[in-house]
Amino acid sequence: MRELKNQLRYVLPLWFVLLITGLLPDNRISIRVRGFLASFFVKKCGKNFTIASGVVINNPQGLEIGDHVYIAKGCWLNAMAGLKIEDEVIFAPYVVISTTQHVFNNNSVRFGGSIAKPVLIGKGSWLASHVSVKCGVKIGKGNLIAANASVTKNTPDNKIVGGVPAKIIRDNIDTKASFSSRAEFEKSRK
Amino acid sequence: MRELKNQLRYVLPLWFVLLITGLLPDNRISIRVRGFLASFFVKKCGKNFTIASGVVINNPQGLEIGDHVYIAKGCWLNAMAGLKIEDEVIFAPYVVISTTQHVFNNNSVRFGGSIAKPVLIGKGSWLASHVSVKCGVKIGKGNLIAANASVTKNTPDNKIVGGVPAKIIRDNIDTKASFSSRAEFEKSRK
Amino acid sequence: MRELKNQLRYVLPLWFVLLITGLLPDNRISIRVRGFLASFFVKKCGKNFTIASGVVINNPQGLEIGDHVYIAKGCWLNAMAGLKIEDEVIFAPYVVISTTQHVFNNNSVRFGGSIAKPVLIGKGSWLASHVSVKCGVKIGKGNLIAANASVTKNTPDNKIVGGVPAKIIRDNIDTKASFSSRAEFEKSRK
Repeated sequence: MRELKNQLRYVLPLWFVLLITGLLPDNRISIRVRGFLASFFVKKCGKNFTIASGVVINNPQGLEIGDHVYIAKGCWLNAMAGLKIEDEVIFAPYVVISTTQHVFNNNSVRFGGSIAKPVLIGKGSWLASHVSVKCGVKIGKGNLIAANASVTKNTPDNKIVGGVPAKIIRDNIDTKASFSSRAEFEKSRK
Repeated sequence: MRELKNQLRYVLPLWFVLLITGLLPDNRISIRVRGFLASFFVKKCGKNFTIASGVVINNPQGLEIGDHVYIAKGCWLNAMAGLKIEDEVIFAPYVVISTTQHVFNNNSVRFGGSIAKPVLIGKGSWLASHVSVKCGVKIGKGNLIAANASVTKNTPDNKIVGGVPAKIIRDNIDTKASFSSRAEFEKSRK
Repeated sequence: MRELKNQLRYVLPLWFVLLITGLLPDNRISIRVRGFLASFFVKKCGKNFTIASGVVINNPQGLEIGDHVYIAKGCWLNAMAGLKIEDEVIFAPYVVISTTQHVFNNNSVRFGGSIAKPVLIGKGSWLASHVSVKCGVKIGKGNLIAANASVTKNTPDNKIVGGVPAKIIRDNIDTKASFSSRAEFEKSRK
């Protein structure tokens, strides 16, 4: 019963929105339109959610998204046990986060069942391309998770984290941007 | 001649099945329907094959799949020299396996030709997200290949393997699952 | 104004070409047709460009491609600050290259702005699956960047490079291929 409700209330409408908007080019307008339409079919979603094409969200009924979150092309999220993405988080392409994990039985993964633990991505963190996050992990606020990292343990706030498995590399301190909009970028190039 | 036969017997029908079923939501019903339809257009396929959307299988005439295999979203497999996936194997999203490899000539990869070696994935193994497997590698039975690993050498049975390049981390022993079906999961949350 | 021009001259036509040709099977004919059609909507493109389905090219007005380049399934390229791919380069599936990078402000990535630096991929290099290249990096000629590497620094010519972060492993020397075409491969198997 609960699964039927989830399919009708979350899974199927979200699939339909992502399928249809997947036909749009990934420019600034369409990532907003797609994010706005998708926001109705997850557990909770803040303002200004933007999302690129090719993203898979399994169990959207468990996904909580803060304000100003951006999810890039091809990310794969399984929110079965609860995935909370705080405000101002950015996911680069092909980030994979699962809140469940397979368990082995008789040396085989297929019928061993699973464990499930929630995942938290702290405010203002950036997960770079191909980052994998294991079930049960809490990523701190203001983290830079470097490209191709596999995060298997909780991380403190404001750290640069990288590697397979991921380790803390150093503090993540503010640096100076060269531009903050496309218009500024174009101007800086003249 | 043989290539024309491969295109008509395997490549084009498989492409058509994956294209059309790619429009379905990735729920438990559609991954079975897609797997069933795809099973006719690979070299050999056991029972209960399930497959998510966005998977690419190059040279399906070289792909042998055992019973109860699951392939998740976006995996990329090239079975040109023979790829055998034994029973009860699970691939997480974005696993890449090639049975051919480019070779350099005059310091350039483009016209250097290739080498080809078969790949074997042992019974009951689980390849986590973003795992890459090099041509010629035999992965043992009951392996857990951790997320973002790049496997370049054969692995023994029942090991946890990880890293870039991948190394044996420890023995992979059975652990206790919290649930083995969605119904059990929902029940455990009440 | 300049952005509107970019959208009409490059972004939208390229999106349309990749959307429509994305329906084709990824065989030798369609990767050429797709590459030929796409070649008109990037800054510069040499002869014999081939490209698989599922590739995203952001800011194609900044992308320069040499002769005989191949880009495999699902690669994600952002050419905003200038991405130059020299002759005879091959990208395996899911290579991610960005020429911009987010910067943190008040411990948050979302409104910190960005920096932008061009990226160069040297002649005849091969980027294997899941490779990430950081903005500002120049990859030398004749490099083999191993699977799942995260390249954060410039690399000299003719090296094998791998790891997270990537390090030089050894010199990349020519080796002997077993075949250089499908016909030769089939012949070698008889």
